[in-house]
Amino acid sequence: MGLDHAATKPHEALSAVLADDMAAVNDLIQDRMASEHAPRIPEVTAHLVGAGGKRLRPMLTLAAAKLCGYDGPYHVHLAATVEFIHTATLLHDDVVDESTQRRGRPTANLLWDNKSSVLVGDYLFSRSFQLMTETGSIDVLRILSNASATIAEGEVLQLTAAQDLRTDESVYLQVVRGKTAALFSAATEVGGVIADADPAHVQALYDYGDALGIAFQIVDDLLDYQGDTKATGKNVGDDFRERKLTLPVIKAVAKADDTERAFWVKTIEKGKQDEGDLDHALSLLNKHDTLEATRQDALKWTEKAKAAIATLPEHKIRSLLSDIADYVVARVS
Amino acid sequence: MGLDHAATKPHEALSAVLADDMAAVNDLIQDRMASEHAPRIPEVTAHLVGAGGKRLRPMLTLAAAKLCGYDGPYHVHLAATVEFIHTATLLHDDVVDESTQRRGRPTANLLWDNKSSVLVGDYLFSRSFQLMTETGSIDVLRILSNASATIAEGEVLQLTAAQDLRTDESVYLQVVRGKTAALFSAATEVGGVIADADPAHVQALYDYGDALGIAFQIVDDLLDYQGDTKATGKNVGDDFRERKLTLPVIKAVAKADDTERAFWVKTIEKGKQDEGDLDHALSLLNKHDTLEATRQDALKWTEKAKAAIATLPEHKIRSLLSDIADYVVARVS
Repeated sequence: MGLDHAATKPHEALSAVLADDMAAVNDLIQDRMASEHAPRIPEVTAHLVGAGGKRLRPMLTLAAAKLCGYDGPYHVHLAATVEFIHTATLLHDDVVDESTQRRGRPTANLLWDNKSSVLVGDYLFSRSFQLMTETGSIDVLRILSNASATIAEGEVLQLTAAQDLRTDESVYLQVVRGKTAALFSAATEVGGVIADADPAHVQALYDYGDALGIAFQIVDDLLDYQGDTKATGKNVGDDFRERKLTLPVIKAVAKADDTERAFWVKTIEKGKQDEGDLDHALSLLNKHDTLEATRQDALKWTEKAKAAIATLPEHKIRSLLSDIADYVVARVS
Repeated sequence: MGLDHAATKPHEALSAVLADDMAAVNDLIQDRMASEHAPRIPEVTAHLVGAGGKRLRPMLTLAAAKLCGYDGPYHVHLAATVEFIHTATLLHDDVVDESTQRRGRPTANLLWDNKSSVLVGDYLFSRSFQLMTETGSIDVLRILSNASATIAEGEVLQLTAAQDLRTDESVYLQVVRGKTAALFSAATEVGGVIADADPAHVQALYDYGDALGIAFQIVDDLLDYQGDTKATGKNVGDDFRERKLTLPVIKAVAKADDTERAFWVKTIEKGKQDEGDLDHALSLLNKHDTLEATRQDALKWTEKAKAAIATLPEHKIRSLLSDIADYVVARVS
C-alpha cells in the first residue's frame, strides 16, 4: 500500500491531534462506569476498558465533530456513549460465542461468569443511553438507538445464518453492517449531527463510517485465516472451528465442486471437524484464490470510505481519516 | 382484606377502562417486535409476550397518563417501551438464573438457547429506546434510561449479595428497588411527565409506583415459601434451592441461634442442601414467624402506595390504582 510502517500509524496521529478530548472521554468513562452499590460492575468494565484497544470508535466521533467545527462539550459524551455500547456488545458477544480470549487476555465471562457479563453489559448499555440523554439531542438519540437495534439484529441474524451454507455475500454484508458497521457509521454521523453540520456532510460522514466499518470487519475475517497470531492476538482458524461462515469461505463455497461442497457440509454445517481439516480448508481458499478476492472487496470499501470523506472540506483530520481507511486494509497487504 | 374475589379483579377492571389504549399498545408491540432480517427475533419475543402475563406495567403508564388528563398519542409508545424493557429483562434474567420455567411455560433459553435470549433481549432493549425517542421528550428518556441502569445495577447487586448471609434488609430493599420497583416507578412517572402534570402529582405517581413495586416483589418472595403452585405457577422453595436471600430468610437469619445459623450457612452460603432441608427451612421461618412479618412489610408498602395516589385528584382510575395496591397483598392474605 506504500504506507511507511515505521512512521506513526494514522490512528495514533489522530489520537495525538485529539489528545485533550480523548483524555476527557477517558475521564468520563471512568466516572460513569462506577456503581455506588455494585462494585462488580466497575471491576468487570475495567478489565475490558483497561485492556486498551485502540478506542477507534470514540475517536471517530470526536474527529467527525471537530472536522465539522464543533466547539461544544457534548462530542465527549457521545464518544463515551459509543465506547460503552461497544463494550456492552463485546461482553455479550463473548457470552454468545463462549469466547475465552479477548485482546490477548481472558474474557470477563471466563474470569467472572456469564451472568456478570450479561448484566454488566446491560448496565453499560443503560449508561450509554443516560449519557446521550445529557446531550439533549433527540436526533442523536434516534441515530444511536437505531444503531443499537441494528447491531442486535445483525448478531441474531449471524446466529441463524452461521452454519448454513446458503448464506451468501448479501447476507454476509447484512450481518457485517449490523455487527460492526452500524456503530462505526453512527459514531461518525452523530459527530456531524452534534456539530449541526450540513446534511450532505452528515451523510458523507455516515457513508465513511459505514464503508470503513465494513472494510474493518472484512479484514478481521481475513486475518482469521492468514493472520500472525502474535500481531493479531487471534488464532488462525478460530472462525473455522466456530463454524462461522465468513467471506473467504462463502466465496469458496460458491466455487466448490461436489467433493469440496461435501467437505464444507461436513465441517461447517455438521461441525464434524477432524485433524487436518483446517489445513484442507485453507488449501481450498487458496485453490479458489478467495483470500485475495476478499482483500479486493475490503479495498473496494476502503475506496468508498475515502471517496465519502473527500467530499468534506479540506482539514488535517480529514486527511487522517482518509489515511485510517488505507491503514485498515494495509494490515493484510 | 375485605376484597371480594368473586368480583372483577381491580387490574382487570382497569384493563377494561383502558381497553382501547391497551389494544393500541398490543398493536404497537406486535409491529415493533418484528424484524425484517432475523425471524428468530419475533419468534422468541412472541413466545414470551404471547404467554400473556397481566401487562401490569404498561397499564400503569396508560393509567397515570389518563389520570393526569393526557389526550395525546405517546402514552401508548411509553407503555410499549415499558413492556419491551420488562420483556428484555425477563429474557436476560432467565439466562442469569438458568431458569427452565416462566409463566408455566418453558423459558426461551430452554426452547432456543442462551445466545438467542441474550441477543433478542438486547434487540428489545434497543427497540424500547427507539420507541421513547419517538415521543420527542428528553425528560422521558432520562427517566427511563435511569430506570434501566438501576434495574441492571440491582441485578448485579443481587448476584453478589445472594448467598451472602451478611445481606440485610437494607440491601434487600436496594435489590428490590432495582430489579422490580425501578420499572414500576418509571412506568407511572413517565405517564405523568408525558401529560405535563403538576410536579407534585408526578412525584406522587413515582412514589406510588415505587411502593407498589416493592410490595409486589415482597409478596412474590413470600409466595415462593407459601404459594400454591397451581395458582402461582411457581414451585414452593425455588428461591431456597437457588440460594436466594429473600426477606423471609433474611428475617430468620437475623433471629437465628448458633445451630440455626449453621444450617443457613450450610444450605445458603455453601449450597449443601439435603433432603428435608427445605422443610427444616420452612419450620425455621414459622418458628420466628417471619412469613407474617414479611406480609406486614408488604402491607406497609401497600399503605404507602395508597397514601401517595390519594394526593391526586379524585378519578375512577385513581380508585382502581388504589385497589390494585390492596390486591397485590391480598394474594397472600
